Amino acid sequence: MKTCAPGSVIGMLGGGQLGRMLALAAAQLGYHTHVYCPDEKNPAEQVTDRLSRNSYTDEAALVEFGKSVDVVTYEFENIPVETVELLQKHVPVFPSAKVLKVSQDRLREKDFLNGIGIETAPYAPVATVDEAAIALRDIGYPAVLKTRRFGYDGKGQAIVRQPTDLLDAWASLKSSEIIIEGFIPFDMEISVLAARGQDGEIRCFDPAENIHKNHILDLSIAPARIAPELRAEAIEIARRIVAELDYVGVLAVEFFVSGAAPVFRVNEIAPRVHNSGHWSIEACPTSQFEQHIRAICGLPLGDTTLYGRTEMKNLIGDDILDMESYLKDPAANFHHYGKKQAHPGRKMGHVTWVYPDAASWDD
Amino acid sequence: MKTCAPGSVIGMLGGGQLGRMLALAAAQLGYHTHVYCPDEKNPAEQVTDRLSRNSYTDEAALVEFGKSVDVVTYEFENIPVETVELLQKHVPVFPSAKVLKVSQDRLREKDFLNGIGIETAPYAPVATVDEAAIALRDIGYPAVLKTRRFGYDGKGQAIVRQPTDLLDAWASLKSSEIIIEGFIPFDMEISVLAARGQDGEIRCFDPAENIHKNHILDLSIAPARIAPELRAEAIEIARRIVAELDYVGVLAVEFFVSGAAPVFRVNEIAPRVHNSGHWSIEACPTSQFEQHIRAICGLPLGDTTLYGRTEMKNLIGDDILDMESYLKDPAANFHHYGKKQAHPGRKMGHVTWVYPDAASWDD
Repeated sequence: MKTCAPGSVIGMLGGGQLGRMLALAAAQLGYHTHVYCPDEKNPAEQVTDRLSRNSYTDEAALVEFGKSVDVVTYEFENIPVETVELLQKHVPVFPSAKVLKVSQDRLREKDFLNGIGIETAPYAPVATVDEAAIALRDIGYPAVLKTRRFGYDGKGQAIVRQPTDLLDAWASLKSSEIIIEGFIPFDMEISVLAARGQDGEIRCFDPAENIHKNHILDLSIAPARIAPELRAEAIEIARRIVAELDYVGVLAVEFFVSGAAPVFRVNEIAPRVHNSGHWSIEACPTSQFEQHIRAICGLPLGDTTLYGRTEMKNLIGDDILDMESYLKDPAANFHHYGKKQAHPGRKMGHVTWVYPDAASWDD
Repeated sequence: MKTCAPGSVIGMLGGGQLGRMLALAAAQLGYHTHVYCPDEKNPAEQVTDRLSRNSYTDEAALVEFGKSVDVVTYEFENIPVETVELLQKHVPVFPSAKVLKVSQDRLREKDFLNGIGIETAPYAPVATVDEAAIALRDIGYPAVLKTRRFGYDGKGQAIVRQPTDLLDAWASLKSSEIIIEGFIPFDMEISVLAARGQDGEIRCFDPAENIHKNHILDLSIAPARIAPELRAEAIEIARRIVAELDYVGVLAVEFFVSGAAPVFRVNEIAPRVHNSGHWSIEACPTSQFEQHIRAICGLPLGDTTLYGRTEMKNLIGDDILDMESYLKDPAANFHHYGKKQAHPGRKMGHVTWVYPDAASWDD
C-alpha cells in the first residue's frame, strides 16, 4: 500500500470536466494536481497547480511527468494502455493498466463480466460483414453493432433492425474490430459508483437512475426508483466487479433493468468517476471525486450516505444559456465547467438539487 | 450594476487560504481566477488559472493585471488602499477602496460604527504616551492599546491593567498611531457573515459562536448558543453595517456579547470572507465563498439557510498532524490548505461537522 498524504502531488491524465472536479476535490484535501493533457484550453488546467501539454505517446514527456508526481490517475478511459504501462514503471498508477485494458475493449469487458457470472446482453465479436451476418442469426434482431474501442455517448454504434440494415451499419462504423450485441429492451438504466481503496475496502454510492436525451445523459436521480432490495442487488454486483478487478479508485457500472421481476444486465463499466454520480458533490458527505482521490492516495474511504433524494441535470450545449434561472433557484447547485464554446452535445455544466427531507422518491 | 457572467475572469489580490477557497468556489461557477500576490508558494496559486507574483505597489504590474480581468476582489484587508484606488480606474473592484479605508483603521472603523449608532468598546485615539495616560483616565483599567492598522490574531495589541503597565505596553507596539480601547468583559464572541449584492440585496448567515485559543480562532459553532431573538438582533446590526457602507461582497462582523440581558458591542469588521464562516461550505446551500463570488459578479445571492447545527475546528500548526483521525471520521469534512510548513500559529486547515437532524444546540 502506497499512501500519499495531503500535500503530495497527484498526476492526472486528461483535462476534461471530470478532471476539473477531481482537481477541486483534491485541492480541498490539500493535494496539488499536475494535469497531463494534449488539449489546448482544457477545463482542468484552470484549477490545477501544474500542466504538461503533451501527447500521450511522448515517452520523454511522460517519464518526466511520472517523476514529478507521487501518484497518477486518469479521468477518461481512452488513454492508451501503453501510456499507463510506461508510467507504472516510475510511479503508482490507479486504476491499473490491467483494468484499463478490460474496460477499453467491449469484448474483453463482456468476457470478464460473463466470466464472473454477471449477466450482459448476448454478444459476439466479428471482424467482417460476413461474420456479422452469421452472428446475427444467433443474436437476432434488433441488434447493435459497436466498435470494440473508443465509443462514448452513442458514438461508434449502429442499430441493425433487419438483415438489410447490416451493410450500411457496418460501413458507418469504419472499423473491423466490432462487437455485435443483442438489443436489450429495458425499463430503466441505472448506475452504481463503486469505490475500492488500496486496502480492499469497498464503498458504493446509492444507485442512480439515468435518463438520456439524444444518447447523452440528461438526468440522474438518486436513489433510483426501484425497490430497496433491487438497489442492494445492483450494489452487490458493483462490489463484485471492483473486487474481482482488484480495482483502486471509483468505477461506474451501468445496468439495464428489465422486466416485472427485474433482471439486471451490465451495459458497461467505466474505470473512472462518472457523469451519473455528480449529485454526490452535494448529496453525500463524500463526493465521488473526493472518494476517488481518497482511494488512489491510500486514505480511508469516506461516507457515501445520501442526505436525501437528489436530482442532477446536465447542461448540454445551449442549455447553459439558462444559467440565470438556475442561479436564481435557491435550491439549485449550479456547476459550470469553464468552457467557452457551447457546441451542440457539449457538456457545459450541471445542476444538482438535494431534498434532505425525503429519503427516497416514495416518501 | 456590472454583471460578470460565469466564464469571466476574477482578479484576486492576495493568495492565502481564503483566496484559495474563493478560487475553488469561483471555479465551481465557471469563473477563471487570476491571483495577484507577492508571496512565493501561496496556497491560492495551486488552484488558480493565472498568477501575477508582484508587489502591491508595482503600478505597471497592477495596471496590466487590472486590464486582464473582469472584476477584482481581495482576500485580506491589509492591501494598500492606493492599490485598490489604482485598480478601480481600470476595472470594478469590490469591496470598494472607501470600505477598505474604514476597515483598515480601527479608529475610522469605530467612528463609523458609533456614527450609525452601533455600540463598540469606549475608545480614544492617541499619538503619544502622555495622551494615552490622559485617555486612560476616562476609559479606565484594564484597557487595550492597539495599533490603528495591520493588526490580526492578537498581533499589534497590548493590555494595560494598571497605570504602571503603560510604558512597556506603549513601547511594545512600536507605533504612534494607537487607539486605546476599554476592555469589555464578555460572555461570548459571535460573528455574522453578511453578504450584499450589487443590487443592494442582503443575505446573512446564522451567527456563529467563536472560541479562541492563544488569540487565534479555535472553534466556530453555528448557530451561536444564544436565544433566537438575539441572533436576529446580531443579524440586524450586520445588515445595517453593509447597507450603510454600500458594501458589495461578504463582510464579517465580530461582536462581544455581555451581560444577562445581553448587550452586543461590535469588536471589529473585516471586509472579506472570514475564518468563522468556513462551516458554510458544508452546512449551507451557498457557502460564504460562493456568496462573495456571486455578490462581486452581480449574480443573485444564494440561499444561506443552515442545514443543521455545525462546528468548525481550525487546524493550527501541528494540529495538522492529526489529519488521519479526521480523515477516518465519516462525519468530518477535512480541509487542508496545501501549505508545506506547519509553523506554530499557522492556519493549516480546518474540519467541519454538520448535524442536519439538529436545527440548533438546544434540540
